[in-house]
Amino acid sequence: MNLILLFQDDFISGTSRVCLKGRRYQHIRDVHRASIGKELCVGLCNGRIGRGTITDIDDQHIELNVKLGRKAPKALNVRLVLALPRPNMVKRILATAASMGVKHIILFHSRRVEKSFWKSPVLKEENIREQLILGLEQARDTVMPKVELRKRFKPFVEDELKGLAKRTLRLVAHPEAQRPFPAASKRTVTLVIGPEGGFVPFEIETFSKIGFQAVHLGERILRVESAVPALLSKLTN
Amino acid sequence: MNLILLFQDDFISGTSRVCLKGRRYQHIRDVHRASIGKELCVGLCNGRIGRGTITDIDDQHIELNVKLGRKAPKALNVRLVLALPRPNMVKRILATAASMGVKHIILFHSRRVEKSFWKSPVLKEENIREQLILGLEQARDTVMPKVELRKRFKPFVEDELKGLAKRTLRLVAHPEAQRPFPAASKRTVTLVIGPEGGFVPFEIETFSKIGFQAVHLGERILRVESAVPALLSKLTN
Repeated sequence: MNLILLFQDDFISGTSRVCLKGRRYQHIRDVHRASIGKELCVGLCNGRIGRGTITDIDDQHIELNVKLGRKAPKALNVRLVLALPRPNMVKRILATAASMGVKHIILFHSRRVEKSFWKSPVLKEENIREQLILGLEQARDTVMPKVELRKRFKPFVEDELKGLAKRTLRLVAHPEAQRPFPAASKRTVTLVIGPEGGFVPFEIETFSKIGFQAVHLGERILRVESAVPALLSKLTN
Repeated sequence: MNLILLFQDDFISGTSRVCLKGRRYQHIRDVHRASIGKELCVGLCNGRIGRGTITDIDDQHIELNVKLGRKAPKALNVRLVLALPRPNMVKRILATAASMGVKHIILFHSRRVEKSFWKSPVLKEENIREQLILGLEQARDTVMPKVELRKRFKPFVEDELKGLAKRTLRLVAHPEAQRPFPAASKRTVTLVIGPEGGFVPFEIETFSKIGFQAVHLGERILRVESAVPALLSKLTN
């Protein structure tokens, strides 16, 4: 936790002080070894970043006096459109994408996604939000990404993604593609990443019809959880 | 498993056939849905890559007839020198580095590495090897990386690393550095990555004295398990 993410309802009303319990309280106490007067990096969710000075601590809660000043770091100009990974990878991937500055993530169904993955508790709204918070706290960001779930391939790609991706640089990461993955672009990028085992030919054709180029990252096939940071890193200046 | 990694002692002596049991047998049966005549991508550890045709299968083992032809993919010209991460990250990081083509990984001690991490069973030789194999199989590579453990910071950096890194591009990833991380280089790179919480100033000075430049990857601080693929990806053409 390189930044403590604060929410409006943490504030003691009418003051610049917050009262924290639970996970954030424990982290400040155990990892930051909190003591009165100590300053920590804090940020208001979807707002500015600043310092919080510890004014009170007991065995239940901590109070900080907060001064917010600077803006959150620049977002990464990439929309991440990801075939739903296996549940044990979803949490890490969401936290990674959030920490790298992605602000819109769509998890969608494709042929090689196991249908049972959609029933996993990792996709509950509160669990997704928890991972996004961990990612923002790691990267010292405050701007909450939007995560959407799309359980039907064709209507999502042909109707929705077509419109969303218009006028962006449209890339599908596909190990069998002929073109190499491009270097960082000034354009907004819509980056599609397939499931383990990749997309089937029909799916690649569907993306191609709405203007997506299939691109590869070299001879090596990476697991989705390595491919996400590796590809996003290529798009980061 | 995009490639089945084979070892000399898998071969039925004097033949081009291998007999597999255990993990590889189960994977071929359950994931590849093996049947006689089916061809799979195989590779000989530290050797060539080719095709294995299933010639026999029962409820205990599988036999493949193997033809090896092409070379393993090019290695990534990067030596990865990593402060020992927490045990639950070590496995994934080793597999990721192996899948991205790193052939020499050194895990070393630094101030902010908890001493107890060195006692973790993930550092046993057979457990390290297992992760490297998973990484190679993922990336369709056969060349086994070398992993070394160095439990004392000063003797390692001042005596050993100094010599090893000579004439290479020497980089320490450090969020507080002034210089940005460089793009892919034709030179061999020695890449040092710190622990959670980063290096202490004395350590950065020690690296600097032997010719390492501190470089950052932007404003955002990444977890080590995201930083490794993100940084290696920057160094991949």
